[in-house]
Amino acid sequence: MYWSKSFIPTSKENPSGAKIPSHQLLIRAGMIKQESAGIYSWLPLGFKVLKNIESIVREEQEAAGAVEILMPTLQSSDLWIESGRYEGYGEEMLRISDRHDADLIYGPTNEEQITEIFRSYIKSYKNLPLNLFHIQWKFRDEIRPRFGLLRGREFLMKDAYSFDLDKESAKISYFKMFTSYMRTFKRLGLNAIPVIADSGPIGGELSHEFSIITNTGETEIYYDSRILEIEDYDFDYSKKDSLENSYNKFTNFYSSTDDKHSEDLFQKIPEEFQNKGKAIEIGHIFSFGYKYSEPMNAFVNNDKGENIPVYMGSYGIGVSRLVSAIIEAYHDDRGILWPISVAPFQVGIINLGKNDEKCKKVSEDIYQQLRSNNIDVIYDDRDESAGRKYADMDLIGIPYQIILGPRDLESNKCELKNRLNDQRVSIDLDNIIKELLKLI
Amino acid sequence: MYWSKSFIPTSKENPSGAKIPSHQLLIRAGMIKQESAGIYSWLPLGFKVLKNIESIVREEQEAAGAVEILMPTLQSSDLWIESGRYEGYGEEMLRISDRHDADLIYGPTNEEQITEIFRSYIKSYKNLPLNLFHIQWKFRDEIRPRFGLLRGREFLMKDAYSFDLDKESAKISYFKMFTSYMRTFKRLGLNAIPVIADSGPIGGELSHEFSIITNTGETEIYYDSRILEIEDYDFDYSKKDSLENSYNKFTNFYSSTDDKHSEDLFQKIPEEFQNKGKAIEIGHIFSFGYKYSEPMNAFVNNDKGENIPVYMGSYGIGVSRLVSAIIEAYHDDRGILWPISVAPFQVGIINLGKNDEKCKKVSEDIYQQLRSNNIDVIYDDRDESAGRKYADMDLIGIPYQIILGPRDLESNKCELKNRLNDQRVSIDLDNIIKELLKLI
Repeated sequence: MYWSKSFIPTSKENPSGAKIPSHQLLIRAGMIKQESAGIYSWLPLGFKVLKNIESIVREEQEAAGAVEILMPTLQSSDLWIESGRYEGYGEEMLRISDRHDADLIYGPTNEEQITEIFRSYIKSYKNLPLNLFHIQWKFRDEIRPRFGLLRGREFLMKDAYSFDLDKESAKISYFKMFTSYMRTFKRLGLNAIPVIADSGPIGGELSHEFSIITNTGETEIYYDSRILEIEDYDFDYSKKDSLENSYNKFTNFYSSTDDKHSEDLFQKIPEEFQNKGKAIEIGHIFSFGYKYSEPMNAFVNNDKGENIPVYMGSYGIGVSRLVSAIIEAYHDDRGILWPISVAPFQVGIINLGKNDEKCKKVSEDIYQQLRSNNIDVIYDDRDESAGRKYADMDLIGIPYQIILGPRDLESNKCELKNRLNDQRVSIDLDNIIKELLKLI
Repeated sequence: MYWSKSFIPTSKENPSGAKIPSHQLLIRAGMIKQESAGIYSWLPLGFKVLKNIESIVREEQEAAGAVEILMPTLQSSDLWIESGRYEGYGEEMLRISDRHDADLIYGPTNEEQITEIFRSYIKSYKNLPLNLFHIQWKFRDEIRPRFGLLRGREFLMKDAYSFDLDKESAKISYFKMFTSYMRTFKRLGLNAIPVIADSGPIGGELSHEFSIITNTGETEIYYDSRILEIEDYDFDYSKKDSLENSYNKFTNFYSSTDDKHSEDLFQKIPEEFQNKGKAIEIGHIFSFGYKYSEPMNAFVNNDKGENIPVYMGSYGIGVSRLVSAIIEAYHDDRGILWPISVAPFQVGIINLGKNDEKCKKVSEDIYQQLRSNNIDVIYDDRDESAGRKYADMDLIGIPYQIILGPRDLESNKCELKNRLNDQRVSIDLDNIIKELLKLI
């Protein structure tokens, strides 16, 4: 992408009202724009990051055997009356009347709708287990939307729903999602900490939250820091033992939210690993059994011909929230430090010789070569000062930056800058593509 | 994808209430499920088709220089009051009050919102021309939703918005979108007919609808059938002449909706090319100049330092509607005939020897080889009768079908069936991958 042909409205000013780094930086980097309280437009750079995260989440869901569908944003209130959640859900549920005075809601989650889909088609244990997921916009009418995407109202979520014949089989479905979440977050550059959680309005008996530690977290968690050192994310979805071992590995270390914290257990951790920190929740999974299948009549026949309710679970990842969470984990005083897996562009080209024909030619040439090697690259071809170009490229957080100036070009060289550690090295022009292909 | 591990609830029964082939087939093929009037869930196969169409639309928008963003589904009513459309839009607009009694609407289109984004950032002619598009769910509260996806309420639309300094430059933006639409539809297997259109509630002075002829169209159009024979879709977005020539080529032939039809002009077409037919609209483009920029104060400085309103256009493609439109154009009495560019899978494998170890082994082997060649393949590994497998594979419209039976395997052969022309040929197992790679 040529910077001049995109739409990247960066700004030096910190926006008023934005209190945490991710909110400030998303606006300053021209990635999002607030439209109403807690409702945002995604400008080109922000949209690319959102899509990159979405792709990783999708790939890992599919790898775990989940099948993608798409449910609509608006749901009939009838489903929620059937499950018993319509009255109780409170004011966070956006309730809507259509022109015929039918009651709709903007879905805050989809347990009811997926149960209704399941019961419409699936009648036999032979079609189990099944896990269906979708990635769709949802709405929660927060009383005080704040912190940008972290507590917005219209937000993008991946939610998966598992259906099993019994609790034993449901455990495997739960392990699959649990371990796939750890892999997903790892690919996003995040070391997530799983914490046993209350199941809240979703319900059920087994539940984990996945959180990352940042300065701006909303809740406090206590944890054994060895959980962050686990390096072995290897397991086999088709083998129960492998899944269970992996699950146990990730859940063996102590972790707890402060309301459930046990100082006794905490003190048993060797002191150097005792840790607490502020946490941002990025995922939440639930095994809730018959909570929806019983009242909503989602029954299947087992192999004895008995008609029994299906055993369910649900598994959420906050896709739009992750954009903010990643920034909270990765930024400095100059801007964002995107992990390369989600960066809007992997490489940025800064042309310092805006009136220098050779600079232009070499920049264009490198740009085309990177593109033909399937590297996602932005070329800052604007008529702006060097200072502005450096600052903007750092602000939007491009991991690798090629700096092309007339003086370097005289000796057939350019600079390659690593945004993360701020190192700059001088490289022969003939080697720059090879060097980048090695790094990416 | 293994059929047994996906979720493809096919049915032999025609659903009651579904009156046109696309609606019937989408439900029978297990691609969509109605949730409320005019609101659908997308089951795995339907979702794949939707995504395939979306990808082609996106690629062609990007090729034409449009930049992708994403605006939210819910908008503040304030914007519509500013533009003057809030009162006039009528009951098709879904109006919503949030918990603080703020008035929101579920966006039926985004002219207001994009104008507001533009005016927030862009102040100078130096940033023009600009074309921003998004692909987002929209809502129109139709009084009588019907025909499945063709007249639904929650629907997916691609809408692009162009911004130019003046009418002359805006013409080029219009040509770009016009020609990119013809290419987009061609890639979807559709010969679209552009027709000069009324601009309706969007407003403006130049507007085209793009339609295809099917038995179940909603309006009647008269046209010179030579427009369907144009084979040269070649043009260069960077050259004004090339764009204009291409635009002229597509608009030179007579076409008209019946309300604007001129029998005089029609009679000037050689008789063998005079045609009329029922049409389904699949795209609509508008050049409306200052209709939103003036009341909403979206002004830029020109190179003389004068502050003038920006000249705008908007360009819509009905992405979810296209799923139905393509089926209306491509089906037979056995099911859907997907063009390969949008088919949920390019190849289907039908294993007829469900208890035959060699059949299973060869099926699995071909399945893995196709996947490693990046061919999207579904393997019907179910414990079902041959008749059911044949019928289902035809119903869901898989273009190329490999049929593996124990008898053929004895002579190291299989059958390759072309869904479109129903031809079956016997092929050596050793050649089947090569043969398919040639075809796809």
